[in-house]
Amino acid sequence: MDALEILSNLDQVFPYFQPIFSADEQRIIAYEVLGRYKSEEQIISLGSFFQDNEIPDEYKYEVDLLIVRKALEKAAKLEEDICIFLNRNADLLMYGSGEPFLQELLEFEKNGFSLRRIVLEISDHQYDGDLDQFDHLLQYYRTYGIKIAIASMNRESHYIDRIGQLKPDIIKINLEALKSTATGTNFNDVLYTLSLLARKIGAMLLFENIEMSYQLQFAWKNGGRYYQGYYLHPPSVEFLSRDLLKSRLKEKFHDFISYEKRKLEAVYVTTEYFQAQVQEVSAKNKKVSYVELFQALAKEMEGIAFRMYICDEDGFQKSANMFKGAEGWYLQMEYLNKNWSWRPYFLENIIKMRNERKGILSDLYCDIETGETIRTFSYPISGSDYLFIDISYQYLYEHEQLL
Amino acid sequence: MDALEILSNLDQVFPYFQPIFSADEQRIIAYEVLGRYKSEEQIISLGSFFQDNEIPDEYKYEVDLLIVRKALEKAAKLEEDICIFLNRNADLLMYGSGEPFLQELLEFEKNGFSLRRIVLEISDHQYDGDLDQFDHLLQYYRTYGIKIAIASMNRESHYIDRIGQLKPDIIKINLEALKSTATGTNFNDVLYTLSLLARKIGAMLLFENIEMSYQLQFAWKNGGRYYQGYYLHPPSVEFLSRDLLKSRLKEKFHDFISYEKRKLEAVYVTTEYFQAQVQEVSAKNKKVSYVELFQALAKEMEGIAFRMYICDEDGFQKSANMFKGAEGWYLQMEYLNKNWSWRPYFLENIIKMRNERKGILSDLYCDIETGETIRTFSYPISGSDYLFIDISYQYLYEHEQLL
Repeated sequence: MDALEILSNLDQVFPYFQPIFSADEQRIIAYEVLGRYKSEEQIISLGSFFQDNEIPDEYKYEVDLLIVRKALEKAAKLEEDICIFLNRNADLLMYGSGEPFLQELLEFEKNGFSLRRIVLEISDHQYDGDLDQFDHLLQYYRTYGIKIAIASMNRESHYIDRIGQLKPDIIKINLEALKSTATGTNFNDVLYTLSLLARKIGAMLLFENIEMSYQLQFAWKNGGRYYQGYYLHPPSVEFLSRDLLKSRLKEKFHDFISYEKRKLEAVYVTTEYFQAQVQEVSAKNKKVSYVELFQALAKEMEGIAFRMYICDEDGFQKSANMFKGAEGWYLQMEYLNKNWSWRPYFLENIIKMRNERKGILSDLYCDIETGETIRTFSYPISGSDYLFIDISYQYLYEHEQLL
Repeated sequence: MDALEILSNLDQVFPYFQPIFSADEQRIIAYEVLGRYKSEEQIISLGSFFQDNEIPDEYKYEVDLLIVRKALEKAAKLEEDICIFLNRNADLLMYGSGEPFLQELLEFEKNGFSLRRIVLEISDHQYDGDLDQFDHLLQYYRTYGIKIAIASMNRESHYIDRIGQLKPDIIKINLEALKSTATGTNFNDVLYTLSLLARKIGAMLLFENIEMSYQLQFAWKNGGRYYQGYYLHPPSVEFLSRDLLKSRLKEKFHDFISYEKRKLEAVYVTTEYFQAQVQEVSAKNKKVSYVELFQALAKEMEGIAFRMYICDEDGFQKSANMFKGAEGWYLQMEYLNKNWSWRPYFLENIIKMRNERKGILSDLYCDIETGETIRTFSYPISGSDYLFIDISYQYLYEHEQLL
């Protein structure tokens, strides 16, 4: 595409709108504005125009401004709770120290378009300028009610520190990465923790490039509030009926919810099952040593457990590890007296067990030593001692609802 | 410092060792090797030498190799479960495609120094080369048992995606950032989520630059297994007694544990208190509408709650929001029928409440709308309906054990 052709045919430049759906309302809550150019043959994206380093910023600014104007004029007829997402890389945003663009937006505000409806989707990973200055500009924009979304988890980079620094309103996650199997499990873990970070800092997750049903489920399961992608709706020149997908999304979510509830129920039932097993074995072995208790449990929980140990309520190990290696169960004495209070959830679970006198089955996590995905069943065995039983991946795999 | 001076006085180049302590054993489990040079007047760090872009890689490689050799020769006398951390930026590691360095290490293995004891602390944020090739080299190294640590959370960059890609054995966190108040709260949230990510992928957290007691507590509280810094011990030319700090660390951890348990107990007691309050109010208001129930609760929980609503077990809101604004409590009808099942922990808590018929007090998180740090008390109100009461920051602040 010839930049000059575009610049001399600005009347052929116009915005496309891609709808963004929300999980809580199952309807359109925003549109992302995308630049398009109508050449003689076809409508083409202006993405490469804006990414072309050869084109001076002032030309880009001019074309962009035109798109923004046309988009906001059109958006004036939308319901007032629908937001408009505008893409902005750092260079474009910093053009003229960010003043001309802000003035332009303020003009629209005068005409009744609240700036609270503007979301700036910024990307700064290729920005060479002063990042502090850039951050200050963003904070300044925010004082007008403008929201900030940052793209995370794309191929080039995703800075968790930038999320911490900027405290964005929205974190955008590109699901394209999900298509490659290479990113598999870890991508899952990274996204899970990102969803918890978002929760902690009060940011929303927006998943983009949703192209298939399983990606929608993935987004929903990982704390995604907003969704966007061809699977839902491609960008188009016109706005859509807000409730276009309401019944379809409701149905989808219903399926996701049922599936998730079944899994959670399975975890609950398993916890009760382990609870009953351990209770019975420990009742029968009240006066024996911990090693003898382990032996009794190992018999009962053959094919389920692969490691057992006992800690006091400060996390100090009161027993050795009983571990199941290739040759069967054996004791690992070096674990005696080790302390585990520093591990996430450890003391929290101790206090829970101390008060409820009930066992807990942990979430899935990666065992440090075996590298396998496991769960741990913990149980208040007596007084201030707590029993920990690590459940093998093999068992979880055979009971897939536990994975 | 003159690079030439160093290169022509290689016999004055030697390693320093900074001990790394573990939380589980409260003793030294590794040493980080640091390059030093003895000039006529003083002993200086070789850090700037290795970071100097003007100095050709082959000179750096030579100096580094000398340090590694001297370090490993000395380390031969250490107990065999003590690891050696070697710093390696990507350029240095990729020197000669990483072969000469590996050959060097294999020489040491022949002499009985297991490569399982080597931890490569890599930094790649300034690397211009092919990152894929670099990752392949690391995976190749790992096949020899060598462990990989990556530095995260330093000032320049901390890539959560790199953590996902590399699945390092150890994630190193620089606590220097904690000194600046600017990073405050968010740094906390970022670290908290990083500790959960580490748990999910089976990596260990190592906190460095611990210079004060509160930093040690911070590291302990955030899932840190390994600690390093002047507060514990400065780098020195000799190895230390492994149990040097055992009793001091035990004492410290004891204090941290007691403090944390008191906080957790306070959360538990508060949960019980809310539980009793809500139980009483709802018992007295069995046949009234949800709005009337809210009014009764608002009276009872004045100064505690600022938002109430009811969801069914699929997360659909069955009531409006009852919200306390500047003018007092009022209803926000637009929340009716919204769905919250996509939020982290939501369905998990529903299933818990369904089975236990008991209320849950959430962790601290940031309210999307008010931007304040809050907790939510949820309670199985009847059949398949669940009551959610958001607890104000003001209340938590006045009961600081809840913060």
